Amino acid sequence: MIALTLDQSRFLDAARVGALATADGDGHPHVVPVVFVLDSGRIYTPIDGKPKRDPSGLRRLRNIRENPRVSLLVSWYEEDWARLGFVLIRGTAMILESGSADSRPAKKEAECRSAEALLREKYPQYEKVPLGGPGCLFIRITLDQLTSWGII
Amino acid sequence: MIALTLDQSRFLDAARVGALATADGDGHPHVVPVVFVLDSGRIYTPIDGKPKRDPSGLRRLRNIRENPRVSLLVSWYEEDWARLGFVLIRGTAMILESGSADSRPAKKEAECRSAEALLREKYPQYEKVPLGGPGCLFIRITLDQLTSWGII
Repeated sequence: MIALTLDQSRFLDAARVGALATADGDGHPHVVPVVFVLDSGRIYTPIDGKPKRDPSGLRRLRNIRENPRVSLLVSWYEEDWARLGFVLIRGTAMILESGSADSRPAKKEAECRSAEALLREKYPQYEKVPLGGPGCLFIRITLDQLTSWGII
Repeated sequence: MIALTLDQSRFLDAARVGALATADGDGHPHVVPVVFVLDSGRIYTPIDGKPKRDPSGLRRLRNIRENPRVSLLVSWYEEDWARLGFVLIRGTAMILESGSADSRPAKKEAECRSAEALLREKYPQYEKVPLGGPGCLFIRITLDQLTSWGII
């Protein structure tokens, strides 16, 4: 597991949004804003509860199925450029879905519930916004490499 | 050329930072924060004047040489999630470098100077921060597709 410094962990815990980059099987990159939580060296980002279309068809999910390598950028911008900073994570993604075929459904269900609880704690918005459907649907990113720059 | 709505143009002109996603020849995505300007339906983003290493070795440049397909995310975050929004651009990148071998050096030089002037106008920080080296070095993104969501 990648060891994060205290500053890196604090920055990720405090950050409200990141940019998740995926690429399809042909190497065409795609990037979307995501909310996320960090837990035990992994990043969890939920699939929006109100997708325009069937969430299983979302491009980021299709891309991850074709190519699990992802990058997550969490950056801080200020007009004082001496105060810029970012954390860049390179990782391996998997789709965490409760109710899906799995040899260890109870373990996956527990992981889903834990990620959901952390998200609700970090983002009080989920008191009103639906978090996922009846089951749970997250992208879980295992950190392969982490770089930080600037104020972090 | 992609036609932008007035709201999309205004949003991009007002935005201070974006997330540029590239992918290497093996399809591994990479994403970095960038400043940028929009000009005549193209996006220009400079290569930092103070890179840690030789700028020609920057991963985003290596990736673009291997694979010119890029995505640029420009997003707006607020704690009121009814006020979220983003513009997502899929485009084709080229490295715009004055002084490089080119059959039309004067045209490229003029394009470089124009992008530089727009950047200096948008970002007064460049009064103090060096913009590129002795020549000019930009990533130019030709827009292939643009999607906007939320408040835009």
